Amino acid sequence: MQAVVSLIDVSAAKKLTDEYIHDFCSRRSGEALELGPAYSRLWQSIEKLLLAGGKRFRPYMVLATYQVYQPKNDLKAILPAAVAQELIHSAMLVHDDIIDRDMIRYGVKNIAGQYDEYYQPYLQDTDERNHMTLSAALLAGDALLADAHKVLRKTNRASELVDQAEDILNTSIFEVIGGELLDSEIAFLPEGAITAEVISRYKTASYSFVGPLTTGAVLAEAPETDINILKEFAIIVGIGYQFRDDILGMFGDTKLTGKSTTTDIKEGKRTYLIEQFETVANDTQKELFFSIFHQPEASDQEIETAKNILIESGALQSVEDRIEQLRQQAFEKISQLSLSEDGKSMYEGLVNHCLKREV
Amino acid sequence: MQAVVSLIDVSAAKKLTDEYIHDFCSRRSGEALELGPAYSRLWQSIEKLLLAGGKRFRPYMVLATYQVYQPKNDLKAILPAAVAQELIHSAMLVHDDIIDRDMIRYGVKNIAGQYDEYYQPYLQDTDERNHMTLSAALLAGDALLADAHKVLRKTNRASELVDQAEDILNTSIFEVIGGELLDSEIAFLPEGAITAEVISRYKTASYSFVGPLTTGAVLAEAPETDINILKEFAIIVGIGYQFRDDILGMFGDTKLTGKSTTTDIKEGKRTYLIEQFETVANDTQKELFFSIFHQPEASDQEIETAKNILIESGALQSVEDRIEQLRQQAFEKISQLSLSEDGKSMYEGLVNHCLKREV
Repeated sequence: MQAVVSLIDVSAAKKLTDEYIHDFCSRRSGEALELGPAYSRLWQSIEKLLLAGGKRFRPYMVLATYQVYQPKNDLKAILPAAVAQELIHSAMLVHDDIIDRDMIRYGVKNIAGQYDEYYQPYLQDTDERNHMTLSAALLAGDALLADAHKVLRKTNRASELVDQAEDILNTSIFEVIGGELLDSEIAFLPEGAITAEVISRYKTASYSFVGPLTTGAVLAEAPETDINILKEFAIIVGIGYQFRDDILGMFGDTKLTGKSTTTDIKEGKRTYLIEQFETVANDTQKELFFSIFHQPEASDQEIETAKNILIESGALQSVEDRIEQLRQQAFEKISQLSLSEDGKSMYEGLVNHCLKREV
Repeated sequence: MQAVVSLIDVSAAKKLTDEYIHDFCSRRSGEALELGPAYSRLWQSIEKLLLAGGKRFRPYMVLATYQVYQPKNDLKAILPAAVAQELIHSAMLVHDDIIDRDMIRYGVKNIAGQYDEYYQPYLQDTDERNHMTLSAALLAGDALLADAHKVLRKTNRASELVDQAEDILNTSIFEVIGGELLDSEIAFLPEGAITAEVISRYKTASYSFVGPLTTGAVLAEAPETDINILKEFAIIVGIGYQFRDDILGMFGDTKLTGKSTTTDIKEGKRTYLIEQFETVANDTQKELFFSIFHQPEASDQEIETAKNILIESGALQSVEDRIEQLRQQAFEKISQLSLSEDGKSMYEGLVNHCLKREV
């Protein structure tokens, strides 16, 4: 439809988002000082963590979508709505790290990690200190979750549009909470009803793709039909993104991803890849694989064997085929959008970036 | 100003609030079913906990304040804003129980308690099970915190007024998080800057009094001067409420309060009462008292001795004097409100209820 001259790219979106986050956290840190330096410190910890990493792909998707539908409008008007997506993501990461008992995020100390260091001189008992650092992380996540709403409301668009964006934010949170719960329960509950695809839909696609893309489209007053297509598109890409993530978590280049490729096997993570393995593998392959899978003490040699079985059985290829199928479906959705070729090619680039990536 | 015929009372407010909570949780439980029965169960747990107790004093304050300023308007229009106060309170309780490692709330199993029972057959390892139940409680609190915003936006008043109410909600959350953090750190951080009054101001007064009263007043379009007076009034009453709570926690009738009167001494909780004791007691009294205080193994006899020292030293009387002073200050604020005698007497009743209570 509209001719888009020059669309925002991920690094420009990151710059805008990071500036906003810095300003926001500094202001909060100042306000927190009224309660006491201890509270101000929490906000400094939050800022430190938030600015330590994150590709800001969610804000990018909000901004780029807004731009393809409203190429002439000032992007800064809707920057708060873009930043809000990053804040709920951060809130979830902070709380996720509590669930996973992690102290490191983006290669630096997360909230619990920072507080563990700070509380060390006062709390020698490790249990007690763990408990207090967990409390600080819990409160930091709560603060981010609440402030995602505050920031979103700063969006400079008509009140009804901001209301709709807040509804989307709420649905994102509702769904990601469900996704997190299912993901934590799939490990031990016998109910076969929980599948990796459902978890990918709600833990990943919902708040990482559906939320950002529909937020941008709603604020840009995109046609209703386009908003619905974008929602379906986002679910497809989000699920594919997660499946690619599972493959990279198993066969990726640790130097590029920064992630261990042994954890998922040792912890027995039931990804889509494992589900496919159960469908395509023969009994001998299954017996050998599951003698290694979910054994925290498995040797490197055993893990190598397990990975080879995933390849030989055809499970890996089966996931690759499914990702390619999702990629084609996503392209089909893009073709239905009422956009110029420039706009469509932005989304095509997005699909390839998410589903064909090596990082 | 306006003649108020019949103001809502606490039990009527509870009835309205509980109906709303029941409807809301049922709807959420249904929506959660789309993700899977596991998520629906979380919402059923939330509803069970929320409807097990709670006096709904916060919604009452929203509704009663709205009514004294808008006696002719339909209360139901602003019921969502009243319920939202209860939801952030519940979110904080759920997360507070994680920090305090409690499994019981309102005499029934809280979220962690319910999940501990549910996970028992699947997770025999206590550590692992504790961890998973903690995760469920964490997610439940997040859901409540996010949905407080969703519910608030259902308020049937002009958009700018609802925006203001959401700002108040956000400030309440920001302040209570700070209050919680200070309260958890006062136990071990050497900084004398954290006082019990500051904690009472932010952990109790802010979201339990300032939030509800100013929300009701803003939605009723009360005069700006009255809103400011109500804010000051709320801080005074909230601090007094907490000081009364500290006394009841030490000298109350366990049969009435349902709370142990030995915990605060055993855990060494640094309340305003203890701060006063440090000011008024002599060295002998201090030496004996602090040999018992913060000793988890203290005998009933020793705790009795410690309590007697708090009385003999004049510390208890000193807190009573301060509460009476706050009560007078609160009455002074009420006299400045542009309300009829009926309206003022509602607030006078509120002050006496909060500061002179035995439960």
